[in-house]
Amino acid sequence: MNHADTMLAESLDGFAAAHADIVLLATDREFVRRKRNKPGKVALISGGGAGHEPLHAGFVGHGMLDAACPGQIFTSPTPNQMMNAAQSVDGGAGVLFIVKNYSGDMMNFQMAAEMLDQENAVVIVNDDVAVEDSTYTTGRRGVAGTLIVEKILGAAAERGDNLQQLKILGDAVNKATASMGVALTSCTVPAAGKPTFQISMNEMEVGVGIHGEPGRRRVALGSADSIAEELTSAVKKDLGLKADQEVILLVNGFGGTPMLELYLMVNATRKVLAKSGVTVARYLTGSYVTSLEMAGCSITATVASPEFLSLWDAPVHTAALRWGM
Amino acid sequence: MNHADTMLAESLDGFAAAHADIVLLATDREFVRRKRNKPGKVALISGGGAGHEPLHAGFVGHGMLDAACPGQIFTSPTPNQMMNAAQSVDGGAGVLFIVKNYSGDMMNFQMAAEMLDQENAVVIVNDDVAVEDSTYTTGRRGVAGTLIVEKILGAAAERGDNLQQLKILGDAVNKATASMGVALTSCTVPAAGKPTFQISMNEMEVGVGIHGEPGRRRVALGSADSIAEELTSAVKKDLGLKADQEVILLVNGFGGTPMLELYLMVNATRKVLAKSGVTVARYLTGSYVTSLEMAGCSITATVASPEFLSLWDAPVHTAALRWGM
Repeated sequence: MNHADTMLAESLDGFAAAHADIVLLATDREFVRRKRNKPGKVALISGGGAGHEPLHAGFVGHGMLDAACPGQIFTSPTPNQMMNAAQSVDGGAGVLFIVKNYSGDMMNFQMAAEMLDQENAVVIVNDDVAVEDSTYTTGRRGVAGTLIVEKILGAAAERGDNLQQLKILGDAVNKATASMGVALTSCTVPAAGKPTFQISMNEMEVGVGIHGEPGRRRVALGSADSIAEELTSAVKKDLGLKADQEVILLVNGFGGTPMLELYLMVNATRKVLAKSGVTVARYLTGSYVTSLEMAGCSITATVASPEFLSLWDAPVHTAALRWGM
Repeated sequence: MNHADTMLAESLDGFAAAHADIVLLATDREFVRRKRNKPGKVALISGGGAGHEPLHAGFVGHGMLDAACPGQIFTSPTPNQMMNAAQSVDGGAGVLFIVKNYSGDMMNFQMAAEMLDQENAVVIVNDDVAVEDSTYTTGRRGVAGTLIVEKILGAAAERGDNLQQLKILGDAVNKATASMGVALTSCTVPAAGKPTFQISMNEMEVGVGIHGEPGRRRVALGSADSIAEELTSAVKKDLGLKADQEVILLVNGFGGTPMLELYLMVNATRKVLAKSGVTVARYLTGSYVTSLEMAGCSITATVASPEFLSLWDAPVHTAALRWGM
């Protein structure tokens, strides 16, 4: 970096320059927005602390988000950012906020929702099955499943669903989605300058949060197969997955894990699922919801109805997800 | 991982499962090939040691490679793999091998080229301006610029260019492309189980290779701006970049570097280029040519002719690069 306090601003400037065909960066870098509004469409807005890139700005564009409000690293954006974003991308059909369940984000997004003149609703994502209540959270944390909620809602908004339909769909996708992760190293918040937690070379944190929050247990480093077994079992149990069901599977890296290892986890996870007769209908593999440079990964599964699959497959054109156009 | 000696095989199985719509994995995992051949098209084949994912298998598909031969981690594939790949994807118009300039890869690809019955040619990529001759290389190393060569040649092969045209074009793209990287940590080859080189928290290796080979110098950790200045100056000097020229800019992560930092480097690099009047016509940002979990990044620039840009923009449908379809 250059300086911890200009890091986010410089990174956003680079992002906006690199994706000038898709996004605009607002004055004072309050939000990243879709370049062209689509009149008559419900506006989808998300946001949260930086440090999870490409979430959320990387998912702004056709078929996904209309705007993303970045806070400082691991810090909620302000209600003002959200309100200004809502005014900027208003298509006359209302605003849907997609919020990861952290206390700061919840407070600020709900404040923005209350103050907003436009009709609006909030979908809360709380897919992390590892723990109830955590450092920054009452209830379950919102983690990589947020990407799946944003993709499916984005496609539904693009086809013309109204605010009420999107709210119902968003809650349903969240309910059908579960995640759990494991960390092999800590992340380091630039302003803090030292690792968020201490962990030895031979340990792992099972159920870690995406800010390095504690998970279920700290244990000796296990094999990929044993990790896949533990993460997938927790996800399966939460969703009540049964034989002959299909899932969308996201194997997500936390920022410091190479693709070689993520695809190895894909292989281990699909084998665990196959043992229960669960089929993977769609795969997504990559570092999409990260914790700065933390090494580790998470498994996310969404029970895949035909409607979810059709919306998942719909065209998307963002910095980090692009297909069908 | 599970075991060091099954790591590549398991990762390839996961990759093939996740991208079954695009690729097929050959018997004995000798190569990853495009699912459907295109008759009459020159077949493009690359390969090299694993540990650089998504290179090369992630670039197999429409508009890019027809097959990729993976060696064990940081180890060349065998001539047999390459010959079997060539027979499998033969479209009747000859075979072009795209080879990164490492002694093992060069020897084995040239051996395959000589033994092959089909008409063939070899394009050598040696874009790394950091050093002449290195641990595994006589001359300059082939690094992230390989992606640009593969993308542009892939588009040209798809539009119907013949073998001779592709060989000339590939050499021209390689000549117009220069890269240099910096590492903040080492990588760890799984079978070795310890870091390839020692580097302290406050140091960086300027000009590092993608196997952790030494670069130009080991210095105190610098600011992002100073790193961008040094890498970009070396690239600019090599290409003889002048005001009013346009480039394709790839800011490439080595596997352990988050997008937040890569976009910060995008911002720093475009400012350095702008000072010389050089414009970035196309950006690509991400961890595409990696060194396992090494932290660090490289800057690659390709002098952008209208033809190169048009081929860059052409549709591509691979696991790691996808646009226009």
